[in-house]
Amino acid sequence: MAALAPGSTIGILGGGQLGRMLALAAARLGLKSHIFCPEGDNPGSHVCDCITLAEYDDAAALDRFAAGIQVATYEFENVPVACVERIAKKIALRPGIDALRISQDRLSEKTFLSGLGIATAPFAPVDDADALNQAAARTGLPAILKTRRFGYDGRGQALLRTQADIAGAWQKIGALPAVLEGFVAFECEISVIAARGADGAIACYDPPENQHTEGILSISRVPARISGTTADAAREMTRRILTALDYAGVIGVEFFVLKDGALMVNEFAPRVHNSGHWTLDACATSQFEQHIRAICGWPLGDPARHSDAEMRNLIGADAGQWSALAADPGLCLHLYGKDAPRPGRKMGHVTRLFSRSANSDAAS
Amino acid sequence: MAALAPGSTIGILGGGQLGRMLALAAARLGLKSHIFCPEGDNPGSHVCDCITLAEYDDAAALDRFAAGIQVATYEFENVPVACVERIAKKIALRPGIDALRISQDRLSEKTFLSGLGIATAPFAPVDDADALNQAAARTGLPAILKTRRFGYDGRGQALLRTQADIAGAWQKIGALPAVLEGFVAFECEISVIAARGADGAIACYDPPENQHTEGILSISRVPARISGTTADAAREMTRRILTALDYAGVIGVEFFVLKDGALMVNEFAPRVHNSGHWTLDACATSQFEQHIRAICGWPLGDPARHSDAEMRNLIGADAGQWSALAADPGLCLHLYGKDAPRPGRKMGHVTRLFSRSANSDAAS
Repeated sequence: MAALAPGSTIGILGGGQLGRMLALAAARLGLKSHIFCPEGDNPGSHVCDCITLAEYDDAAALDRFAAGIQVATYEFENVPVACVERIAKKIALRPGIDALRISQDRLSEKTFLSGLGIATAPFAPVDDADALNQAAARTGLPAILKTRRFGYDGRGQALLRTQADIAGAWQKIGALPAVLEGFVAFECEISVIAARGADGAIACYDPPENQHTEGILSISRVPARISGTTADAAREMTRRILTALDYAGVIGVEFFVLKDGALMVNEFAPRVHNSGHWTLDACATSQFEQHIRAICGWPLGDPARHSDAEMRNLIGADAGQWSALAADPGLCLHLYGKDAPRPGRKMGHVTRLFSRSANSDAAS
Repeated sequence: MAALAPGSTIGILGGGQLGRMLALAAARLGLKSHIFCPEGDNPGSHVCDCITLAEYDDAAALDRFAAGIQVATYEFENVPVACVERIAKKIALRPGIDALRISQDRLSEKTFLSGLGIATAPFAPVDDADALNQAAARTGLPAILKTRRFGYDGRGQALLRTQADIAGAWQKIGALPAVLEGFVAFECEISVIAARGADGAIACYDPPENQHTEGILSISRVPARISGTTADAAREMTRRILTALDYAGVIGVEFFVLKDGALMVNEFAPRVHNSGHWTLDACATSQFEQHIRAICGWPLGDPARHSDAEMRNLIGADAGQWSALAADPGLCLHLYGKDAPRPGRKMGHVTRLFSRSANSDAAS
């Protein structure tokens, strides 16, 4: 596919905040956006050129959508594979179907990573309640039982501290196919936000250090408190994943950093990633612009950051503080245009910029 | 007016690139945009929540527009005063009508500035062909004859080098009420992009140095090669203008810098300004976000820049180089989504960032 000219239309499956920020980045480059999403409170709908409100299995709507766009992408990894398969028959879909299929299933994902020689937490498949005892024997306790599919932000998970927690855990996660993951004693969590262009070029942002609260990302800081060697190793693993998937677009890979600096991949998301939101304010090319460049066959932009940064999510009622946040001159405020500030819902984020530190690990 | 809450709708008169970038900035803050503009190639239409395509004298359309928004603003200074007067009867209009009325007429503008004790180039009104000789005697030659109204980007102007150019000049500009401006031997041109909040607070960006080609801005660079004293004086004059107009929003004030460092105001625009586009990439708060904050009654953002910058306009066919520009990793590319790259038409801009220089004049 040749590079899409300005004026072309990008189809985005999903109308959440990631779709919204992708549409805003596309507009900056003179590209149009057509968002496809089910009825509802869709932040992306306020900023796109065109919108289709339909279910992901509405074949006629998908065909009309595909006919009016020059490339398709998705903003969340739970888009049904059948949906993207239908679209990919008509128009280029980036990233591809493999990345989506693998990342939708925690077992496929861990198997894929292991096949690349990339370490993960110890894991064992759990297909029924009886298998849980055996799995716990393999991973050890404590461990976390996670549904294989459709889990995000800590949903579909049960913590098993001791043997006593095993009974009932399978029912607690909805009696669905699952994976038991052994606990890892990590020092910190980091992520690599990286892009691979249609030409195979790869650009990585400096890895942020991430803090979660109740399973939801709360803070990302760059630079992370890790050595240059560890940062390089995380970037190298990310490159291996991107190349193996023949990927085009931005990916977010989450890592545990162990005491000795060794890395384990927690999971990856085949899309722009919450822990990369600081790139909007701290880099000349944001992760959103980078994704648009990659899927449109454009050269990748420069991922170097001009400032250090700390990004905090505004979850649920946090967004009610918008007035005080707007009054803090050091904060870059981003609100997603969502109506209902439900608990656990990502309503926006703020980024604080700092002069770039001298001891930052080198970008690559 | 209390600060408008996220989710509120901003009405923008005008659908050009400035309206587009205002709508994008509003979206970042969780605000919606409704653009009002005549039929045509409207870059703003691709990114706003709602659009009304109608003439500026369509009273019914203006009333419907005003009924659906929480504040109104304009993105260009040639909106008819009758239009904004009608809207201002129904809803807050920022900046106000005075700023628009004064800046629409070069004679009113210069008279207003003189009244504030701010120097301008020597000028004389020209209401008919006969008055031109007398005016030339007052300003001296060379001089530029400019229509009082509806001139921008060098249109509606005639250069008078010698006495021989006087005959025919009045016809050349369309036989319209005009002003003759004497030439000023300036060292460079700068501008101050500044905002005044609804609470009277003022924030100024560092003044860029501007280069024009054929009457159209081609390059803006920060910092300008001027002393801190000159920069402070320019900011002080800008504050005087903002306060005199009881202004709310962003203003762009263009200055000539003379050899001795003295300043003359060339003109001001009661809106975001082309010479402030670098703030999108070099500041935590862009001029577009600053304008949205000011008209919504929010506190102003921090105008400090984290990087030095050079902005170049992409005029007409320049935008055809988008592919090479996108491949330059040091450039931030902005395209306005316009269909027709007519000569002289602003199609986009690029900004190159540099590490912030130590000798920059201090921000205020």
